[in-house]
Amino acid sequence: MGGPEPPIRMAHDHRPVHDVRMRGFAHRHTVEAAIAWLDAHARPAGIELVPLAIAAGRVLAEAVVSDVDVPGFDRATMDGYAVSAEATEGATPYSPMSLALIGDSRPGLPFDGSVDTRQAVRIMTGAPMPAGCDAVLPAEWADSGTSASVPGISAIASVSPGKHVGRRGEDIVRGTTVLQAGRILRPQDIGVLSSIGAAEVVVVRRPRVRLVVTGNELLPSGAHPQGCRIVDANGPMLGALVARDGGVVDFPGLVPDEEDAILAAFNTDAEMIIVSGGSSVGLEDLAPMLLAQHGELAIHGIAMRPSSPTGLGRIDDRLVCLLPGNPVSCLCAYDFFAGRAIRVMGGRSKEWPYASTHARLTRKITSQIGRLDYARVRMAGSEVEPIAVSGASVLSSTTRADGFVIVPMDSEGFAPGTEVTVWLYA
Amino acid sequence: MGGPEPPIRMAHDHRPVHDVRMRGFAHRHTVEAAIAWLDAHARPAGIELVPLAIAAGRVLAEAVVSDVDVPGFDRATMDGYAVSAEATEGATPYSPMSLALIGDSRPGLPFDGSVDTRQAVRIMTGAPMPAGCDAVLPAEWADSGTSASVPGISAIASVSPGKHVGRRGEDIVRGTTVLQAGRILRPQDIGVLSSIGAAEVVVVRRPRVRLVVTGNELLPSGAHPQGCRIVDANGPMLGALVARDGGVVDFPGLVPDEEDAILAAFNTDAEMIIVSGGSSVGLEDLAPMLLAQHGELAIHGIAMRPSSPTGLGRIDDRLVCLLPGNPVSCLCAYDFFAGRAIRVMGGRSKEWPYASTHARLTRKITSQIGRLDYARVRMAGSEVEPIAVSGASVLSSTTRADGFVIVPMDSEGFAPGTEVTVWLYA
Repeated sequence: MGGPEPPIRMAHDHRPVHDVRMRGFAHRHTVEAAIAWLDAHARPAGIELVPLAIAAGRVLAEAVVSDVDVPGFDRATMDGYAVSAEATEGATPYSPMSLALIGDSRPGLPFDGSVDTRQAVRIMTGAPMPAGCDAVLPAEWADSGTSASVPGISAIASVSPGKHVGRRGEDIVRGTTVLQAGRILRPQDIGVLSSIGAAEVVVVRRPRVRLVVTGNELLPSGAHPQGCRIVDANGPMLGALVARDGGVVDFPGLVPDEEDAILAAFNTDAEMIIVSGGSSVGLEDLAPMLLAQHGELAIHGIAMRPSSPTGLGRIDDRLVCLLPGNPVSCLCAYDFFAGRAIRVMGGRSKEWPYASTHARLTRKITSQIGRLDYARVRMAGSEVEPIAVSGASVLSSTTRADGFVIVPMDSEGFAPGTEVTVWLYA
Repeated sequence: MGGPEPPIRMAHDHRPVHDVRMRGFAHRHTVEAAIAWLDAHARPAGIELVPLAIAAGRVLAEAVVSDVDVPGFDRATMDGYAVSAEATEGATPYSPMSLALIGDSRPGLPFDGSVDTRQAVRIMTGAPMPAGCDAVLPAEWADSGTSASVPGISAIASVSPGKHVGRRGEDIVRGTTVLQAGRILRPQDIGVLSSIGAAEVVVVRRPRVRLVVTGNELLPSGAHPQGCRIVDANGPMLGALVARDGGVVDFPGLVPDEEDAILAAFNTDAEMIIVSGGSSVGLEDLAPMLLAQHGELAIHGIAMRPSSPTGLGRIDDRLVCLLPGNPVSCLCAYDFFAGRAIRVMGGRSKEWPYASTHARLTRKITSQIGRLDYARVRMAGSEVEPIAVSGASVLSSTTRADGFVIVPMDSEGFAPGTEVTVWLYA
C-alpha cells in the first residue's frame, strides 16, 4: 500500500488536469504546520522511579538536591602523616622536627583519638583526618624513626594549614542542586548520584509506542520472501527507531488490512500509535478513515517528498502517526514527525539525533517550490553526492547513503557546488 | 586509596628532592606508549548470532549478501490500471482508448491470468504486475466504465513501457552485498536485513568486563554515606561507561583491599578486568603488585594529570586496567585506556564517543611540559572556560563541566583566547 506520491499542481504547470479524476490530496499541509500540530499535542509521558544502575541515558524528571556533604569528613589527599601544621613550622632537612607517631588512619578505618602538636598519625589518601590535625606532611618530607623506644618521625619540611587535606563537602555541599530536571544522565552523573546516597532517581517515563504494521502482502520479519509476498521491513526498522528515541516498543505483529483488525490494534494503553501502510487516500487506505471516524485526523497529506501520504491525529489521549508503507517514506515520515513526538514525550530534545556537517554538492538536487524534499546523499571526501534513487520503496538507498539533505519548500533545489547541510545517519 | 598524583621532576625544577624517600613512580610512560600497548593487545571478542529485533547498534561481524531479489516480482508503484503500454499509444481525452477491465491485483493478492493488449487490470501500489502488462496507467488518466455490459476503462493518456512499475530487484539484486562487516547496524539496516529474509545476524560479541571496585572506606551504591565512609561512585559510573562503549558489565560488588579478595575477583571468564582503586605505588596499593606477580604489569604510571597512577597489563588472555580510585582520575583513565580497549574488542571505533567543537578559552589553562593534562571546561556561549577544581576527587566537577580540553605533553598550557578543541561529554 503506502500509496503513490500524488503529483502536486504548480502555478507554472499547464498540463491539462482532470480534477474530478484526481486521486491525490485536495490539500496538503506544510511540514511546518504538521510539526506545529505535533508540538502542541505531544505531552510528557509522566514520571517513574528507576534504580540508579539502569538510569544512565534516562531523563531526570526532577532536580536532585544533595542532603549530605561529600565527603562527609575532612580527608587526606596524599599518603603521609597527619599533623598540626604549626608543629612543622621551620622544619628543614638540617633542622628536622621530631613528632611521636601515635597511630594510623586508613580509608574507612579512622584514628580514634586526638592528636596534639608534638604528635603525628600515619595517614593514607582518602583517610579521615584525626582530631587535632589540619595538614598532611607528605611521606617524602619525613624521616621515619627518632629513637628505638618511641616510634616517631622527623618532619624535614613545613606544611601550611589545610595542605593536602580535602575538606568536608569539597565535592558536594549539603543543599546543593547537583543535577537539574531534564538532564540526560551521563555516566559521571550516575557516579555523583551514587555518592550522595541516591538509590533510585525520578526520571521521565519512556513513552510506550504501539506499532501497527499493515499490508496483506507482508510476511513477518524473520520469514523468507516468497512469491508475491515481501518481508516486513518497517516493523523492525520502526522498532529500532522508537528504541533509539527513548520509546518502549509494543509490536504485537502484523495486522491485516481490515477495519476490525486495525481498530483492534488501536485499542492499546500506549501513549502513541504508529501505523505503517494504508495511509493515503485510496479506498483501501483504511487507517485515515478509521482515525477520522473514531478520533481526529488533524493532518493528512503533507507537502513533502517522499512521505506525502502521512497523517497525524489522535484517538482519546493517544497520538497517532499514519506513516506510508513505502519504507523510505516510512523512515522519512518517522524522522520528521513520529520520532520528534516520541522524544518530546520522553523529555528529550526535539532535534534530530543526527550529527550534521557541511559539504559541497558534486551534482544538483532538484525539487519543486511548494514541497520539501528529503534527498539521500553519500559523502565523497569533503564533498557530498546525491544518490540516484528510483523510488520511495528502495530502502537500500538509505543504507548506501551516509545521510540526507533537506531541500526547503521555497527552493527548486541546489546547483552543483552549493554548500549544503548534511544530516548524518547514525 | 586511588593514590596521590606524585609530583614529577622537571629539568627546570631545582627544589631539593630526596630520592630515597620519593614515593612516586620511578618512570612514567607516555599516554602514547600506553595506548600503543593497549592497541597491540586488545583483540576482537569473537562473534555471535543475534535475532534481528535486538541487532540495532550491534557491529556486523561478516558482510551480508542477499540471496533474493527485493522485491521478488515486478510491482506497481502507483494505484491505477496495469496495461500493455503499447495499447495506450496515442490516447488523449479527445481520443480515449477502451480497455476491458478483467480483474484486480492487490498487494499479496495477484491477478492470476494473463492480460492481452486490449485489457487492463485494476492494480494497487505494491501489487504484482500481471503477466502481459508492462506499465501502470494512473487512475486519474482513466475514465471508468465503457458500457453497461462489459466492465472497462478508457485510457485518456499514454504511458511508456515500464512506467510506474518497480522492477524485480529494484531495491536489492540477488548476490548484492547489502552491508559490510564492521557496520554498526542502523534502524534502516535492520529493515533491509529483514527484507532479504534475515532472521538473525552475525555480530561481534560484546566484550565482558569484570569490575573490581576496591576500597575499605566504600559503601555499596544505594547506601547512604555515613561517618567516615563514602558511597562507591566508580562502580556505577564504570558500569554506565562500559555499557556505553558496548561492553557487558559484570560487577559482583565491592571487593575488600585484601590480596585474596582481589585475586579471587581476577578469576573471571570476562575478557577485561577493570580495577578501581589501589593502583598507585604505596604499600596498600595491592593491585599492581598482584598483577605483576600473577600476570604482566606492562604499564604502570603514566605522564598525565589526573590519572597518573594507572596500570595496564594482562592475566592470561584477559586485559587488565588498573584505574585510580579518585573518581575524576577513574573517569579520565577509563576514557583514555579502558574505554578504547572495550570499543576495539567490540569492533567499534577507537575514537572517543564524544562530539568535539572548537572554542576560544576565556581563561588560561596551565600544564607542564612532560605531562598531558585533562582539563574540565564549561561552554559559555561560543567560548569555553576552564572549571576551577580543587582535585581529582571532585567528581561533581565533571557534571558541572560540558566537556574537557586536552593539553598535550609538549605544551605548558594555553593562553586566554587560544582556540582549543573541546570534547563534549554525552
